[in-house]
Amino acid sequence: MEDKAQIQEAIKVQGEVVRKLKSEKASKEQIDEEVAKLLELKARLGGGDDGKHQFVLKTPKETLTGKYGEDSKLIYDLKDQGGELLSLRYDLTVPFARYLAMNKITNIKRYHIAKVYRRDNPAMTRGRYREFYQCDFDIAGQYDAMIPDAECLKIVHEILSELELGDFRIKVNDRRILDGMFAVCGVPDDKFRTICSTVDKLDKLPWQEVRKEMVDEKGLSEEAADQIGEYVSLHGGMDLAERLLQDPRMSQSKQACAGLSDIKLLFSYLQLFQVTDKVVFDLSLARGLDYYTGVIYEAVLTQAGVAPVALASNDAQNGSEESVSVGSVAGGGRYDGLVGMFDPKNRKVPCVGVSIGIERIFSIMEQRAEAAAEKVRTTEVQVLVASAQKNLLEERLRLVTELWNAGIKAEVMYKKNPKLLSQLQLCEEMGIPLVAILGEQELKDGVVKLRVVVSREEVDVPRSDLITEIKRRTSDV
Amino acid sequence: MEDKAQIQEAIKVQGEVVRKLKSEKASKEQIDEEVAKLLELKARLGGGDDGKHQFVLKTPKETLTGKYGEDSKLIYDLKDQGGELLSLRYDLTVPFARYLAMNKITNIKRYHIAKVYRRDNPAMTRGRYREFYQCDFDIAGQYDAMIPDAECLKIVHEILSELELGDFRIKVNDRRILDGMFAVCGVPDDKFRTICSTVDKLDKLPWQEVRKEMVDEKGLSEEAADQIGEYVSLHGGMDLAERLLQDPRMSQSKQACAGLSDIKLLFSYLQLFQVTDKVVFDLSLARGLDYYTGVIYEAVLTQAGVAPVALASNDAQNGSEESVSVGSVAGGGRYDGLVGMFDPKNRKVPCVGVSIGIERIFSIMEQRAEAAAEKVRTTEVQVLVASAQKNLLEERLRLVTELWNAGIKAEVMYKKNPKLLSQLQLCEEMGIPLVAILGEQELKDGVVKLRVVVSREEVDVPRSDLITEIKRRTSDV
Repeated sequence: MEDKAQIQEAIKVQGEVVRKLKSEKASKEQIDEEVAKLLELKARLGGGDDGKHQFVLKTPKETLTGKYGEDSKLIYDLKDQGGELLSLRYDLTVPFARYLAMNKITNIKRYHIAKVYRRDNPAMTRGRYREFYQCDFDIAGQYDAMIPDAECLKIVHEILSELELGDFRIKVNDRRILDGMFAVCGVPDDKFRTICSTVDKLDKLPWQEVRKEMVDEKGLSEEAADQIGEYVSLHGGMDLAERLLQDPRMSQSKQACAGLSDIKLLFSYLQLFQVTDKVVFDLSLARGLDYYTGVIYEAVLTQAGVAPVALASNDAQNGSEESVSVGSVAGGGRYDGLVGMFDPKNRKVPCVGVSIGIERIFSIMEQRAEAAAEKVRTTEVQVLVASAQKNLLEERLRLVTELWNAGIKAEVMYKKNPKLLSQLQLCEEMGIPLVAILGEQELKDGVVKLRVVVSREEVDVPRSDLITEIKRRTSDV
Repeated sequence: MEDKAQIQEAIKVQGEVVRKLKSEKASKEQIDEEVAKLLELKARLGGGDDGKHQFVLKTPKETLTGKYGEDSKLIYDLKDQGGELLSLRYDLTVPFARYLAMNKITNIKRYHIAKVYRRDNPAMTRGRYREFYQCDFDIAGQYDAMIPDAECLKIVHEILSELELGDFRIKVNDRRILDGMFAVCGVPDDKFRTICSTVDKLDKLPWQEVRKEMVDEKGLSEEAADQIGEYVSLHGGMDLAERLLQDPRMSQSKQACAGLSDIKLLFSYLQLFQVTDKVVFDLSLARGLDYYTGVIYEAVLTQAGVAPVALASNDAQNGSEESVSVGSVAGGGRYDGLVGMFDPKNRKVPCVGVSIGIERIFSIMEQRAEAAAEKVRTTEVQVLVASAQKNLLEERLRLVTELWNAGIKAEVMYKKNPKLLSQLQLCEEMGIPLVAILGEQELKDGVVKLRVVVSREEVDVPRSDLITEIKRRTSDV
C-alpha cells in the first residue's frame, strides 16, 4: 500500500492545480485532464480502505466536470469547504454513473425521481426553474445489442399512452450516425460537437437559419452544410435505415453503418413490442449532451393545443439551455463511456436510459384538468366523522379512532363544537364521499347515520357494521 | 402604490447592510432586525404585483436566518448570485412556514418527504450525512386546543406500531412549562435558551454533568440548578400535570399553568385515541429549536438491541448538533409564531407538526432484516419470460409484450440466447416467483410452461389463459 499521507498531499496539490485552472478559465480539455489526475489520486487513496471504499470517496464538484459541455456554467456550486469543491447535482445520470463506478455495480435497472439544480435564470412562467424534478429510468449492464434500448422506448410509449397526454412521436437517432454523417459531409473533426448543437436547433428554427449559423458563425463550408441539410430532412423507419446503408456517401463511414444496423435491429424489436406506430427514425435529432455514445431519442407531443414551452433546463437529459421545443416530454439515449470515467481502471459499464419530463407532464395534466373544469381531489379521505349536536367531540374522537384502527381514511374537524353544516361543506370542498354522523339519538340507538355526500342519501348503520359498510361503499372510490 | 424603483434601491442598500453585518459577525439579534427590515421592503415590492406575488418573492438565505439558533452554521450557503444570498433548506419546517405565508394559506394538513442539507462534518458510520431525507407531517390552522396536537401523536404511534420497530415511548413536554419552570427556579430571562439546551442533554448525560455545565459553564446559581434538577426528574401522565398545577412553586407561573392545563387536555384526547400506553409527560424533554411555542415531543425506541446512534443532524426537527440519543426516531411540536415571521403583517398561522426520522428507521429495518438473514426483494417482478432453446428471443419479446400490456410485472433477460439455467438462477437471486418458459414444443402446442420457482412445480398453461393464470397466482404475492 502506498503512503497515505503522501497521496493526500498530492491530492491537495492537484486540487489546487484544478482550482487555479478554473479560476484562469483554462480550456475544458486542460481542466478535464487535471481533474482525471485528481480522481486517479483519490481512487488510489480510497483503494486501501477496501470495505469502506464507498464511504471514503466524496462526490464533489469534480464528478460533474466535463460532462455537460457548454451547460457546465449552470451547475450550482457550493462554497469550498475544507479544500473540496462541492456542487449540487445537475441531472440524475452523472450521479447514477458515479454510483455504479464507486460501488462496482455492473448491472442494474432502476428508476429515480428526484430534484436537480441548475444555476439558470429562472423563468417561472415558461416552466424554467432552478430546482426541479427529474424522473429517470436506466438499464446498466453488458447485454446483447438494442434489447434494453428497445425496452426504454417501450416504457416511454407506455407512460405517454397511459397518461393520455394526446398523440405523440418518439424520434430516434444515433450518435454514430450523426458523427458518421458529419464525417462524410466533410465537417472537420474538431467541429463535430458544435455543428451537432446547431443541428439540435432544427426543432425550433427553419433549416435556412440553421444553415446560416453553420456557415456564418461556425465557419462550415456551404457544400458541407448543404449535404448535411439533405440528410437531416430525412425521417422514416427501418426502411430508411436500410436505404442509408446503401447510400454511396453514408456507407463510407463505418461508424454510421454500425449505427444504421443497430437502428434496423432496434426497429425489429420495437415491432415485437408493438410501438412502431409512434417511433420515427429522424436524422435531425441531435441531443446536446457529450456523454451519449449510441442511440438517442426524444418524445414530443404532437397534438394541437400543447403550447410551446421553453423546456431547456427542465427537459429530460437535454441540457441545451437555448432549446425551445413544442411539447418535448421525454428523452434519453445510450451512454457507454460515462461509468468508466469514474473508474480508476476505466472499466466500462454500458448504460441506456430515459428521462421523463415529469414537471412538463404535470403542467400539461394540470392545464387539461383546469380546461375541463375538473375538480382535482387533493386528499384521499373516505369519510368525515361529524356530529349533529354540541358536546360530542369525545364521541367523534372515539369513532374516528375505531375507523383509523381499521385502516379507513377518516377525518374529524379540529373543533369542539362544529356546526353540522360546516362539516358537510368541508366534505363538498374536499370531495370526501361519506359522512358518519353522530347525534344523541344515534348514540342511544347504537347506530351511526351514514350520509352519501353527492346524493344526500342517509342511512342508519349499526355501529358494529359501520366499518364493513364504509369499506363496501368506498372500495371503488 | 409606492415607487418601485425607490423600493428596489432601498432593498439593494438593505441587502448590503445585512451582508456587511454578517461578514462582521454581528450579533444574531442585530442581523435578525436588519433581515426583518429587508423582508418588509421585499414584501412592499411584492405587494403591488397581486396575483404574481408568489412568483416575485424568492426564497433566499434570509428565509433561514434566525430560525435555528446555534445550528445556523450548518446551513449550506450557495454563492451569492445577482446580489441574493442563497442556501439549501436545512429542514422542511421553515420552508413549509414560508410557503404558507407567501401563498396566504391559513389551513392545511400535509406530509412531505424530501431531502435537506446541513454543512456538518459527515460521519457516515454514525448515520450523519450532509444530505439526507426528512419526513414531515404538519397541521396548520386556527383550531381548538390540542386536537391537532393529539392527532400528530396518534400518527407517530401508528407509524411506529405498524413498522414493528419494537417497543417505544413518546415523551411529551411543553415549551411554556419549561420556560415557567426556569422562571420559578430563578433562571434569569436571558439564560432560558442556553439553560434549555443544557437540559436537552439529559438524554445522554447524567444529571450531575448537566448540573455542572449549568453552574460552571453557564453561571447558574447552585440553588436554581438544584430546583431544576427536582423537576426534570419527574415523568408521568395526566396525574403529574394535575400535581404540578398544585405545586406551590410551579403554580406561580401563568405560562407553566397554561402548558400544564394543555397537557391534561392532550392526555384526555390521547386516551380516546388509545395511545396513552406509550406516551409519557417528561419534564426533562427540551428540544433545541427556537421556533417551538407549545407542546413538544420526541419518540424513542426502548427495546434492547437498538444501538445508540448519533442522530443529531438527521433526527427529525431536532437540530442540536451535539445530541446523541438512543433510538430517537421522531420528534416535533407546536410552532405558532413561525408563519407570522414571513408575513409582512405578522398574521399568525398556528402549526403543529412531527418529523419522522426516516433514515434512522430505514437503517434499523435494514439491520433487522440482515440479522434475521431475511432476503429483501429489490424488485416487484412477478414473472420472468424465459426460453428453453436457442433462437427464441423474438418469441420471448412477443410474450413479454402481451404480459406488459396486461399490466403484469414481467421481465426478459437482455440476451439473445440465455441458458435456461441462468434464467432460473436470475429468478432465485431476484426473488421472482414465476417463470413463463417457451420452447419449440410449447409454441407448437399453443401453451406456455409456467414454473413456480420455490416449488419447481411446472404446468402447461394454454397461451390464452396465461394472463389470468399469472394474475391468479400472484394476487397474494
